[in-house]
Amino acid sequence: MSLLVVGSLGIDTIETPFGRVENVLGGSATYISTAASYFAPPVRLVGVVGDDFPGEYLQFLENREIDLEGLQIDQGGKTFRWGGKYHYDLNSRDTLFTELNVFEKFTPIIPESYRKTTYVCLGNIDPDLQRKVLEQISRPRLVVGDTMNFWISGKMDSLKKTLKLLDVLILNDAEAREMTREANLVKAAKSIIRMGPKTVVIKKGEHGAMLVTEQTIFSAPAYPLETINDPTGAGDAFAGGFVGWIARTDDLSESNMKRAVIYGSTLASFCVERFSLDRFKDLTYLEIQDRFREFRELSRFDEDLTSS
Amino acid sequence: MSLLVVGSLGIDTIETPFGRVENVLGGSATYISTAASYFAPPVRLVGVVGDDFPGEYLQFLENREIDLEGLQIDQGGKTFRWGGKYHYDLNSRDTLFTELNVFEKFTPIIPESYRKTTYVCLGNIDPDLQRKVLEQISRPRLVVGDTMNFWISGKMDSLKKTLKLLDVLILNDAEAREMTREANLVKAAKSIIRMGPKTVVIKKGEHGAMLVTEQTIFSAPAYPLETINDPTGAGDAFAGGFVGWIARTDDLSESNMKRAVIYGSTLASFCVERFSLDRFKDLTYLEIQDRFREFRELSRFDEDLTSS
Repeated sequence: MSLLVVGSLGIDTIETPFGRVENVLGGSATYISTAASYFAPPVRLVGVVGDDFPGEYLQFLENREIDLEGLQIDQGGKTFRWGGKYHYDLNSRDTLFTELNVFEKFTPIIPESYRKTTYVCLGNIDPDLQRKVLEQISRPRLVVGDTMNFWISGKMDSLKKTLKLLDVLILNDAEAREMTREANLVKAAKSIIRMGPKTVVIKKGEHGAMLVTEQTIFSAPAYPLETINDPTGAGDAFAGGFVGWIARTDDLSESNMKRAVIYGSTLASFCVERFSLDRFKDLTYLEIQDRFREFRELSRFDEDLTSS
Repeated sequence: MSLLVVGSLGIDTIETPFGRVENVLGGSATYISTAASYFAPPVRLVGVVGDDFPGEYLQFLENREIDLEGLQIDQGGKTFRWGGKYHYDLNSRDTLFTELNVFEKFTPIIPESYRKTTYVCLGNIDPDLQRKVLEQISRPRLVVGDTMNFWISGKMDSLKKTLKLLDVLILNDAEAREMTREANLVKAAKSIIRMGPKTVVIKKGEHGAMLVTEQTIFSAPAYPLETINDPTGAGDAFAGGFVGWIARTDDLSESNMKRAVIYGSTLASFCVERFSLDRFKDLTYLEIQDRFREFRELSRFDEDLTSS
């Protein structure tokens, strides 16, 4: 099944307690499409970069079987740049700088050949642009969207319109609380469901993730990593693993959505092991399968009917 | 199998976004023994109250088949009192007042009939007193201990001596981080294991709990409650459910420890549904079993071998 990813591509400068890297590959669409490429290649990518975007980064994406027909290369423009610094517990970060550059005037243009796409994943771009993407595509089977605090606090009215068009909203715990003004995450998720998406996935960082529908709640643990070098992109890698698995299997059942959450968690856990997208340079599908099974062991317990 | 619980009994005043109660039953040993009483009655209780401790609270404990032979009633003394106020997200609280009263000079005296006790659970009392308890008991099969930030920051040297005598340490995430100065919870748990306890259980509030041994990591979800009226005692109810289940089954295997974590989580989830220990006034063993099974559904996903 075909999968389209729309979002940002960027060049990042990242500082964590474990190191600092400059001018590395970044951007939400980059992480999403790379993670998804393990399941549903070729992944269709729509985004924009400047002519300063390094050829080796394009090569990396091509090596991951990401289809770059929809990538706009703005001649004379500069690529979106972001700099961030993580605190010692890795749960909070300061944005050091944001240079929107070519991303400031970005309008997603969906190539003719992408207009029949079965699965769509919208990175956390302006909700106006998210809707513009959907207007150009003929009835996808599933639309998964992400968002961020910037749009929740600044463009909630537009975001509400987009929410009505999403099947699945993926967001983190702080965003869910901010969007609904509800501290309890279960209540927050149910409140979001009333705004449109039938399924809400709340990412909780080191605490795992939660999938909520009208009927069910599924709780996924986080993989207990001892070494997290760089949390950047973990949420996007999650979204990519999630939507990638669904596109691969073309199965929208609740039990498959749960598996998708675990695949999302798996890809996120690999993502943070190294800086930028470095872990995906040598990550294999076999490693993903092994970790998926480890996730099962992590939360498995047996009922003991004899003594209960 | 016999189970001994040592810790505080108190009279609490609690304010949460959902209400305020005055002079209600509280104390770590109260919650621990009440939760454990569902699995391993009669639970032996050692603690101290003043002569102002309401008869109805003694009656409540007796109704829960808690053996009060070890309860010291200090004639002329006043019971330990605590007042706390929870913030809107229920994850943080302010202590409004602490009156130690009879608890200030408390020395645990283990009655002759308790000296052969198979399972021991030490509430978060002074680590000096925790050791004093163990000196009076002949080689229990398992010693489970709790602690709190007050002893970690104020009496870490004494706490380290106690840690060497514990089989299982139960503590919350903030305490684990403070004790080890390690932000990563897996690393923190392993660092605590090097201090003595073979098993560390980290309670993560709304994010569930994690059991860590040298060989294994088990991640338990939190029960997705929409209504939490009062988080007081949840951690103690967890400890009581955990040790109670182990005492009931007399099975120290890793797979049974995992079940014990789920029973602990189950008892904690009931605890917070009402103020003080009110939920335990009518909670039945059948309800506990039902929720234990719900916990299983919560984190269960199936491998799909056909499409992987």
